[in-house]
Amino acid sequence: MIDFYTWTTPNGRKVSIMLEETGLPYEVHPVDLGKNEQFAPEFLKVSPNNRIPAIVDRDADGGPVSVFESGAILIYLAEKTGKFLAPKGEQRAKALEWLMWQMGGVGPMLGQASHFSNSAPEKIPYAIDRYITEAARLIKVLDTRLGDAAFMGGDYSIADMATYPWIKIAFPLIAQAKPEIVGEGANVKRWLDAVGARPAVQRGMAVPQT
Amino acid sequence: MIDFYTWTTPNGRKVSIMLEETGLPYEVHPVDLGKNEQFAPEFLKVSPNNRIPAIVDRDADGGPVSVFESGAILIYLAEKTGKFLAPKGEQRAKALEWLMWQMGGVGPMLGQASHFSNSAPEKIPYAIDRYITEAARLIKVLDTRLGDAAFMGGDYSIADMATYPWIKIAFPLIAQAKPEIVGEGANVKRWLDAVGARPAVQRGMAVPQT
Repeated sequence: MIDFYTWTTPNGRKVSIMLEETGLPYEVHPVDLGKNEQFAPEFLKVSPNNRIPAIVDRDADGGPVSVFESGAILIYLAEKTGKFLAPKGEQRAKALEWLMWQMGGVGPMLGQASHFSNSAPEKIPYAIDRYITEAARLIKVLDTRLGDAAFMGGDYSIADMATYPWIKIAFPLIAQAKPEIVGEGANVKRWLDAVGARPAVQRGMAVPQT
Repeated sequence: MIDFYTWTTPNGRKVSIMLEETGLPYEVHPVDLGKNEQFAPEFLKVSPNNRIPAIVDRDADGGPVSVFESGAILIYLAEKTGKFLAPKGEQRAKALEWLMWQMGGVGPMLGQASHFSNSAPEKIPYAIDRYITEAARLIKVLDTRLGDAAFMGGDYSIADMATYPWIKIAFPLIAQAKPEIVGEGANVKRWLDAVGARPAVQRGMAVPQT
């Protein structure tokens, strides 16, 4: 059994999609960010950076193992099950480079775009435009990649699971705000449809129920 | 032989440190960001996100493999050599979670702090404070971790190599700006000294020569 600490955000959904795709048994522990539950001492033992998602794999060889950071959890679960990440070679390298591209680019930059557009106490045009423009650039990079490959790493992999929950929300907003950068985004649209049609993705996007 | 595309930035140094630590033969190809060389078509074939670092491993089984994103390159080289990342178990999970913490947090947020402090065309107090505060919080999380373990993943690993080039620059600046968050940072200081004393780290931090 895997204890899964999560909330209704894109980073949490990356992992709920993977749990559904692999069929691993898991138990959801909602961490309500609106109530600051991510600062509870018990949660910080598992996730010292006070962020969801995190897991504890109770069935790991040698005793329970905790993992925080969505990207690390995805690799952990892929290696535990032998699914959605090639064990070696070019396919593995491609999946990991695009997973890292999501972790270091798409997540942080779209997160900043959302902050300055929706949450900051003042509207700062320079910062809003900086992050919307970077989001548009990243979506264009993704669209170009998906013109060369069916999925980000070639085959469907943890890279797609990491990126889908962010791009599903962001694509219509950013494509409308920066059409001169994003263009039509036909490859991204096709990929969003393909990933979103997977039953495990649909189930994962509904976790946690609140 | 590994073709190594890099520049004089923390993200490049992560990989030059790893190349020096593993002793793999490599050839440096400087990509001068000041001259926008990251947009050259030949480079974009290797690194479609127009960022350094990137590598091409000419000796991979099955033909040359290119990898972009510093975190993906570190995993690739660790798995190629069997060094600085445990092959399984808790040590592997810890190294990967702290590597991802660097990729998704330390790099992007310290990058934004630098942008708004040094490069943005206007001084925006809200944005400067937002990212300096987040940098200080991250350094405090690192200090707490390094109170429990000698290195980020337990043993010295690719997580330390990814984080050292950023924290070496940022620690004195952020500790001075936000002492109420960072505190004394004794564990970070001890770790900076230990990592910085490694000859391979010293050699890696001097790549590329310009």
